[in-house]
Amino acid sequence: MVIYGTHPVEEALRGRRKVHRIWATEPGNWTGNVTIVSADEIAERAETDAHQGVAALVDPYIYVDEAELLAVENPFIIALDEITDPQNLGAIARTAEGVGVTGLVIPERRAAEVTPAVCKASAGAVEHLPIARVRNLADFLQSAKDKQCWVYGAAAGSDTRYDQPDYKGGVIAVMGAEGKGLRPRVASMCDDLVSLPLLGKVESLNVSATAAVLLYEMLQQRLDAST
Amino acid sequence: MVIYGTHPVEEALRGRRKVHRIWATEPGNWTGNVTIVSADEIAERAETDAHQGVAALVDPYIYVDEAELLAVENPFIIALDEITDPQNLGAIARTAEGVGVTGLVIPERRAAEVTPAVCKASAGAVEHLPIARVRNLADFLQSAKDKQCWVYGAAAGSDTRYDQPDYKGGVIAVMGAEGKGLRPRVASMCDDLVSLPLLGKVESLNVSATAAVLLYEMLQQRLDAST
Repeated sequence: MVIYGTHPVEEALRGRRKVHRIWATEPGNWTGNVTIVSADEIAERAETDAHQGVAALVDPYIYVDEAELLAVENPFIIALDEITDPQNLGAIARTAEGVGVTGLVIPERRAAEVTPAVCKASAGAVEHLPIARVRNLADFLQSAKDKQCWVYGAAAGSDTRYDQPDYKGGVIAVMGAEGKGLRPRVASMCDDLVSLPLLGKVESLNVSATAAVLLYEMLQQRLDAST
Repeated sequence: MVIYGTHPVEEALRGRRKVHRIWATEPGNWTGNVTIVSADEIAERAETDAHQGVAALVDPYIYVDEAELLAVENPFIIALDEITDPQNLGAIARTAEGVGVTGLVIPERRAAEVTPAVCKASAGAVEHLPIARVRNLADFLQSAKDKQCWVYGAAAGSDTRYDQPDYKGGVIAVMGAEGKGLRPRVASMCDDLVSLPLLGKVESLNVSATAAVLLYEMLQQRLDAST
C-alpha cells in the first residue's frame, strides 16, 4: 500500500514492514530508494493532498495474532467494538502506543482497518503497535477471561466511575462504536462497565478522548503498583 | 456565519447565539425557520460536503470576557497556546465542556478561532462552553496567578508526572501548540510543567488526547475533594 505524511513514513522506516520506495518533493533526510517528484505526483500516488510532500510504497500492514497478545503475562489490551472512523482508530492507536499497551484488538468486519489514512491519523504509531483482527470480539473477550483478564467496557452513563476499578493484572479496555456504544453481547462479556463523569451539556465525549482518559487511568494504577 | 452538521445545529438551537435560519435536506425534528433544500445547496452554503444534511445561519460566535472566567471562585480553566488546528481546538472544546470547566482561553493571534469547522469538530460543545480570546496569554496567566490560581503547563518530557500536583482550588491547565509546545514566556509563567508517561516509541501524543487526560485527572481530584 502507499502511505503518506512525514511521521507515517518515518515510523514505517523504523517499523516492522518493508518500505520499498519513497517519493518525496525534497531529499530531506529520507533514506533508501528515494525519488524526488512533484507534489502533484505524490498526491496522485497517495490519493490525497494531505501527504506533506512524502509518500512510500510499503508492504501490507502486518497484524499480529490475538493469541500472541494473550500469551503475555498480565496483558494490557484495548479492544474496539466496530469503530468505523479512521481518524478515531488512528487517534486511539497513537495514544495506545504511547501508553505502551500489549496490543490493540479490532473486529474483522464492520470496523476500520489499518489503511493509509489510519497510519496518518496515528502519526505512524501503528507501525510499532501490535494490532490483532479478530473474527468475533465477544469470543476474544471470553478467551481473555479464560486467561484471568478483567474486561472493562466504556459505556456512557454506567454507574461505575472509570477510576474506581482495580486495573492491575491482566486487563482489557473495550470501547464502543461512535454514537452506538457497545453491542449487547460485547457489553455482557464485560466484568464491569465504566463511565467518565460528564458535567457539561454535551452527552458524550469523542471515543478517542474517552480511550485516552481510560488508558492513562489504567497505566497510572499499573505504574503505581510496580514501584 | 453558516454552521453545519447535526450536532452543531442542534446545540446552537439550545445555545447562546441566535439561529436565523436552517437549511435541511429533510424536515427531521428541526424547529424555527427551516427550508428544505438539496444536499448540493447545503454544501454550497456550508462550503463543505461534511454537512450531514443540515446547515444554519447563526450570529457570530459569542466570546466571553477573560475577567468573567477569573471572577468565579476556584476557577478551572484550560488555556491553549497557539493551537492552530481546528480539529484540535474543537476536540479540546468538546472534552473541556464535558469536564465542566469554567472556560477555555485562546490567544487572539496565531491560533485557531471558533469557525464552523471548530463547531463541527466540537460536536456543538462550543455553544455551551465559555471561550475567551486574550491579547496576550502570558499576561492572562499572570492575572490568574494574582487571583491565587495555580498554573500547570503540559510539556512532554518534563519531570513532574501529570497526576502528582494538587489540582484543587483555582487551576489553569496550559496546552502548547502542536509540535512546538509551550512558548518560553508562557512556560515561564507556569508553577509547574507536567507530562504524561510515554512508554512506547512515539515521541508525543496528540494535544487533544493530552488535554483529555490532564483535564480528567484535574476533575477527578476536584470531585474527590468535594465529596
